[in-house]
Amino acid sequence: MAIKKKYCLGIDFGGTNTKFCLLDSRMEGSEVVQLRTAGNSKEIVQQMVCGCQELMAENGVKVREVAGVGIGSPGPLDLDEGTILATPNIPGMDGLAIRDLVGQGLSMPATLENDANAAAYGEYICGAGAGAKDMVLLTLGTGIGSGIIIEGKLLHGSHGIGAEIGHMCVEPDGEQCGCGQKGCLERYSSATYIAERARELIEDKGRNGLLAAVLAQSGRLTAKDIVEAVGAGDAFAEEVWDRGMRYLAIACVNICRIFDPDQIILAGGMTNAGRHLLDPLRRHFSSLHWSITEVKTRIDIATLGDNAGAIGAAGVAWSAFGSL
Amino acid sequence: MAIKKKYCLGIDFGGTNTKFCLLDSRMEGSEVVQLRTAGNSKEIVQQMVCGCQELMAENGVKVREVAGVGIGSPGPLDLDEGTILATPNIPGMDGLAIRDLVGQGLSMPATLENDANAAAYGEYICGAGAGAKDMVLLTLGTGIGSGIIIEGKLLHGSHGIGAEIGHMCVEPDGEQCGCGQKGCLERYSSATYIAERARELIEDKGRNGLLAAVLAQSGRLTAKDIVEAVGAGDAFAEEVWDRGMRYLAIACVNICRIFDPDQIILAGGMTNAGRHLLDPLRRHFSSLHWSITEVKTRIDIATLGDNAGAIGAAGVAWSAFGSL
Repeated sequence: MAIKKKYCLGIDFGGTNTKFCLLDSRMEGSEVVQLRTAGNSKEIVQQMVCGCQELMAENGVKVREVAGVGIGSPGPLDLDEGTILATPNIPGMDGLAIRDLVGQGLSMPATLENDANAAAYGEYICGAGAGAKDMVLLTLGTGIGSGIIIEGKLLHGSHGIGAEIGHMCVEPDGEQCGCGQKGCLERYSSATYIAERARELIEDKGRNGLLAAVLAQSGRLTAKDIVEAVGAGDAFAEEVWDRGMRYLAIACVNICRIFDPDQIILAGGMTNAGRHLLDPLRRHFSSLHWSITEVKTRIDIATLGDNAGAIGAAGVAWSAFGSL
Repeated sequence: MAIKKKYCLGIDFGGTNTKFCLLDSRMEGSEVVQLRTAGNSKEIVQQMVCGCQELMAENGVKVREVAGVGIGSPGPLDLDEGTILATPNIPGMDGLAIRDLVGQGLSMPATLENDANAAAYGEYICGAGAGAKDMVLLTLGTGIGSGIIIEGKLLHGSHGIGAEIGHMCVEPDGEQCGCGQKGCLERYSSATYIAERARELIEDKGRNGLLAAVLAQSGRLTAKDIVEAVGAGDAFAEEVWDRGMRYLAIACVNICRIFDPDQIILAGGMTNAGRHLLDPLRRHFSSLHWSITEVKTRIDIATLGDNAGAIGAAGVAWSAFGSL
C-alpha cells in the first residue's frame, strides 16, 4: 500500500542565503531555516540536499513521508529541463541541472520555479493572498518583479518569459529602460528609479528640501530616504514619491482590466513604507479605475516577508506532486 | 454502458442573427447555420432549441450522441447562474436563465460564455490559433474586445470582468473613454476612434487630402475610408492610421510582457484592412519590443470570420462536458 505523503520541502536559493522549509498538506509550514549560500555549484547542490535532510531530521520527518521538493531560484531558468541558464550574481551555475541533482540527492521528485513566482505562490497559499482565486504579486525593490496566479496556477507564458509586469509600458515614448523598451513601469515606480529621479531633480533643477540635505551630507539617496522625508512632510519628496505611486496605480488598473484578480499583493523592500505606499496608491487607483463596476480588487501588502520564497517553493512541489 | 458522445452543439446568439454549429470530438465543425434572431425572449429560447434540433436532424445526429450545448451571448452575463444580466441591444432578455432553459429544451447539459470569449476559443481550437498553448485575441471594430486563453482555458477573472484589454491604459492622462478611465486602448486604436480623430483634425485643424473630400461629400468618415485613403497613398490618412497602429503595438508589447503568448490574433471589421493593418502593426511592435529576448509571439489575423463564435461556443461545451 502506498504511504500517504504528508510533507513537501521548499528551497529558496539566493546569491547570499538559501532558505529551507517543510510544508504539510494543510499548507502549514515549519520554521524557515536559513544558511549562508555555499561557494560553488557542487557545494551548493550538496548544501541544498543536506539542508533538507537536517530540516527533516529536526522535525522527525522521514523521506517516505515527503512527496517532493520545490526549488525557487533566480533566473533565467529552463523550467522544462530543470536547469539554471544564467545567474549573474552566482558564478559557475550556468547550465546546472539543479532540479535533477537535488532530486537525486534526496531520492524524491523535484521541481524548479522562478524565485519571484515561488514567492507569489507562497503568499497565495499561506500569506496575504490566502483565499484568493486569482492574485497578482508585485515585488517592489531595485526592480519590479511579478508573479501571476490564475485559478491556483502560476502563469509562465508559452516561452517562459511571461509575468514581467515591471516591463509593462506605462508611458509611451517614456524613459529608456535597460530592457530596450521605453516607459516601463520599473522605470517609474521602482525604489531605484524613484531615488534616481529625486537626485536628478536636485542636481539638474536645483530642487531643495530635506532630500537635498541628505544628498549633500551622504552623497547618495535611497527610496528609504524619500519615504522618511515624505513622513516628515517634505513637499518635494511627496511630489517625487507620488509620481511613482501614480504610475504604479496605472499598472494596478491595467492588472484589473486584464486579470480582474481578487487581490494585488505588494512585496519587496518598498513595502516597508507601509501606509506611505498604500495610501497614495489606493487613492490614485480609485480615481483611475473605470466607473462601469465598483472596485472589487483589493491591494494589500504581503505578510510572509523573506520566507515567502521557501514556503512557496514547497507549495509548488505540493501542486506538482501532491497527488502522488 | 454509457454511449460515447461524438458531438457538441454551439449557439452564437446576437442581436441580429443567431448561428448554430455541431463540432465533433476532433474539433471538426459542421456548416454554420444562421437564422435571423427571433423577437422576444420566449421565442429566442424556442428558436435556439429548434435550431439545434434541425441542425442535428440535418446531420443525422441523435441527442444521445451530443455531450452538451454551448451558448455564446453578448453580456454582461452571470456565468455561474447562466443568466443574461442585460443586453442593451435586445430588449426583454434581462435576467433570462438562458443556459438552463436551452439545456432543458434540448435535454442536455448547457454552458454559457461571453460571445467575445467564445470567438477567441473558436480561433484557438479550429482557426488561426490552432496549435497555440497561450493565445490572446483582440477584436478590432466599433470598440476593442478581447479573449485570453492560457493553457487551453479562457481567463474570466475573479469577478467575471477580466480580459478587457480594450480598456488597458496606453496613454496616461489620455483621451476620456466612456468607461470612465482616460487613455484606454479602445480610445486610440478602434475603428470608431481612428475615424473620429481624422474627422476632428479635418474640422478643427483644417487638415486636408482625400479624407476631407470624402467627409465633404458624404458627411461622414469611417475606418474603411481611412484604409482606402492609406491604400491610395494619402499622407494625412497614413498619419492618422499609423498612430492607431502604434498604440495597438504598445498593447501587443504589454500582452507579451504579461502573457508571453504564442500568438496574438486580430479579429473584427478592421482586419479587412489586411496588410495595411499587419504591416505597420508588426513594424511598430518589433521596434517597441524589448531586446532581452527575440520576438517569439506571432501576430496574425483570425481565419474563422463570423463563424468563430458558434464554433467556439461548441468548443466551450466540449471543454465543459467532453469527459461526461
